[in-house]
Amino acid sequence: MFNSVDEVNKSSLVDKNVVVIDALRATSVIVTAVNNGAVVIPILEIEEALKHKDKGYLLGGERRGLKIEGFDLGNSPFEYKREIVEGRKIIFTTTNGTRAIYKAFDANNIYIASMLNGKATARKVVEENKDTVIICAGTYGRLSLDDFICAGKVIYEMNYLMECRLDDSSTAAYLAYRDYKDKILEYVKNAKHYKYLISIGCAEDIRYCFTEDIIDVVPCYRDGEIKAAP
Amino acid sequence: MFNSVDEVNKSSLVDKNVVVIDALRATSVIVTAVNNGAVVIPILEIEEALKHKDKGYLLGGERRGLKIEGFDLGNSPFEYKREIVEGRKIIFTTTNGTRAIYKAFDANNIYIASMLNGKATARKVVEENKDTVIICAGTYGRLSLDDFICAGKVIYEMNYLMECRLDDSSTAAYLAYRDYKDKILEYVKNAKHYKYLISIGCAEDIRYCFTEDIIDVVPCYRDGEIKAAP
Repeated sequence: MFNSVDEVNKSSLVDKNVVVIDALRATSVIVTAVNNGAVVIPILEIEEALKHKDKGYLLGGERRGLKIEGFDLGNSPFEYKREIVEGRKIIFTTTNGTRAIYKAFDANNIYIASMLNGKATARKVVEENKDTVIICAGTYGRLSLDDFICAGKVIYEMNYLMECRLDDSSTAAYLAYRDYKDKILEYVKNAKHYKYLISIGCAEDIRYCFTEDIIDVVPCYRDGEIKAAP
Repeated sequence: MFNSVDEVNKSSLVDKNVVVIDALRATSVIVTAVNNGAVVIPILEIEEALKHKDKGYLLGGERRGLKIEGFDLGNSPFEYKREIVEGRKIIFTTTNGTRAIYKAFDANNIYIASMLNGKATARKVVEENKDTVIICAGTYGRLSLDDFICAGKVIYEMNYLMECRLDDSSTAAYLAYRDYKDKILEYVKNAKHYKYLISIGCAEDIRYCFTEDIIDVVPCYRDGEIKAAP
């Protein structure tokens, strides 16, 4: 099952796997940071995040795509290199991605996915063999094409491992990925958020975020922290 | 903008055009019936519909795809021939389609669309030159692939007439239609509701419902009744 964030009925997540996707860029950043040895603590509000300043945490995230005043790191995955984040706890707040994670709190397992770890996420979820809901963070609650095709990738990889029963929105995402998998950016360039990120100079970030399966780690949220799933 | 029925925020429809789609089969039936000279009165509940029995109305609609006990007509467009419906008022209740029409009550204009009158609907909406929201009735509140690609057709035809600003879900529907327009049934056969309708013997209905642009009438809901838009 596949949902935009505003469609999520929290009670419908109990006992399920949730996969949260905000491909451009929050979940791509989280996957990169956790792969590089960080623990990520998602926080909704900037004020709340700033309370942790100078207490040994790194502060990361964005508003309108830009680094937040007083923060250590923005929302480019290239800022979350191993030499900067390894062994560190990162307080992380973004416009859409962290909100989507909070929406998933009633789920049994909350996994963080992107194109970077799409295949690894599919493997993890199929191993668990539970009903799975994909939450696309979107942009201000509305579906984003970049999340849609990333959801399609996770579903495609799941379905490759095991025949899945898909609802129609999952099938639509699956078909979009299947039909565009050799030319993903041609699809993604139609996304409003793609155009916005290009306008603020993030072309390199986009190229990186749509690189598939270069990370095997699947971050998992539990008790306030996102760490690599065992 | 494009919405599944459960996503609709009623207040967001004020002063807008709404296009309601339930391609398999409610809006295809309404388009056919209105084109054949009927007025359609959408009703949510069977009990309410039955109050109109034997008062000169025809009663039409479905539950689980099947004709309702005590009703005159089911939900196959072939039942709504001119010789049966011309000059008649039809009380009409279906599981998803009529509910979607009720959701749209705050809109400025409510148009009823299907593949049958997709181009005519696009023309009408572009003439009005207002923000337009497409509501896909779906199945029990969840997106249906058949509605998704029909929304894509209306958006495609609108965009052909006038460059439209699309949100990402509209773009996803647009791309699905653009990529499958010469093989629509290949796309639609993935829909859960398609499979259900095939299982209850409605293959002919499906073929008819996915015939494009054979009707120029655009039904419009106003004050309880659906009639051809002027």
